[in-house]
Amino acid sequence: MQKIYLAGPDVFLPDAIIVGRRKCELCRQYGFEGLFPFVQGADPKKIFRANSALMERADIGLFNLTPFRGPSADVGTIFELGLMYGMGKPIYGYTNNPNNFTDRVEASHGARRDKAGRMWDREGYEIEKFGLTDNLMIEEALRETGHKIFVAEQGATGTLASLNAFEKCLSKISREMV
Amino acid sequence: MQKIYLAGPDVFLPDAIIVGRRKCELCRQYGFEGLFPFVQGADPKKIFRANSALMERADIGLFNLTPFRGPSADVGTIFELGLMYGMGKPIYGYTNNPNNFTDRVEASHGARRDKAGRMWDREGYEIEKFGLTDNLMIEEALRETGHKIFVAEQGATGTLASLNAFEKCLSKISREMV
Repeated sequence: MQKIYLAGPDVFLPDAIIVGRRKCELCRQYGFEGLFPFVQGADPKKIFRANSALMERADIGLFNLTPFRGPSADVGTIFELGLMYGMGKPIYGYTNNPNNFTDRVEASHGARRDKAGRMWDREGYEIEKFGLTDNLMIEEALRETGHKIFVAEQGATGTLASLNAFEKCLSKISREMV
Repeated sequence: MQKIYLAGPDVFLPDAIIVGRRKCELCRQYGFEGLFPFVQGADPKKIFRANSALMERADIGLFNLTPFRGPSADVGTIFELGLMYGMGKPIYGYTNNPNNFTDRVEASHGARRDKAGRMWDREGYEIEKFGLTDNLMIEEALRETGHKIFVAEQGATGTLASLNAFEKCLSKISREMV
């Protein structure tokens, strides 16, 4: 049975363990073993090594890219995305926020267009306007491996913990990995 | 001459090219060739591949971990950190913000402590309180390679583009890499 590492800011939810178990259960329904980073506690080195060991064991990475504390995905999740991409393992991603990155930055950090058509936030940093779901490195890494990001439907009341796009992603993996 | 990939949200500055050239110049002064992601434009795939090629060529990664649009580092930078860590290349990091992650999240997203001593932001997500500079995966990855993050001095008026901590980091690399 192939193993899927389940990355995401889900670990910061008050019911992280319940969410993790539910994700693992859904993995089983689709014929996979889910590996959720359940190890918590006071020792960051121990958590890092436990997560790293799970990524080593995993055949596939599945990333919750829902924005976290800002317009972009959780940095811990993105570190793991880079690492598993570097390992050459298949990676899949989903987001429960249907808005594109440019619009989210505009909403949280303002936007103005200059004469050349470039966009800048209110702190003076350029805004990527590729119509992607997040910083280009994230979506392009997934595209390089042949996958798109599963995006929750417009109008869906997606919270970080919603499992609708997650399950669609699992269904896709099960079709591609058999 | 060893090559250092210069990652960071510096690419979003209006004077990104000037900052990149200055960083490369400082690299030369310390005996290295700097590789800055100068490629910009309208094609995200082209940018992704250009940056990836630079990381392939580089012997070392040097990451600007200064918070960007929120309490954490730029996700594009962190994707690259994960990737170069996964490649087994030496990685170094610096931040121009001297405050620790827990304090920054409290400032931007609020914080309350529960009876068990765990901290939660106002959206109900747990706050890591390890006294680190960012999400544990970032700092622990650097520690695994034997490096700490260079932090701008308290009271320093560090903007994203400040080069003081960057230069200290370069100096350390030159002592370790000879």
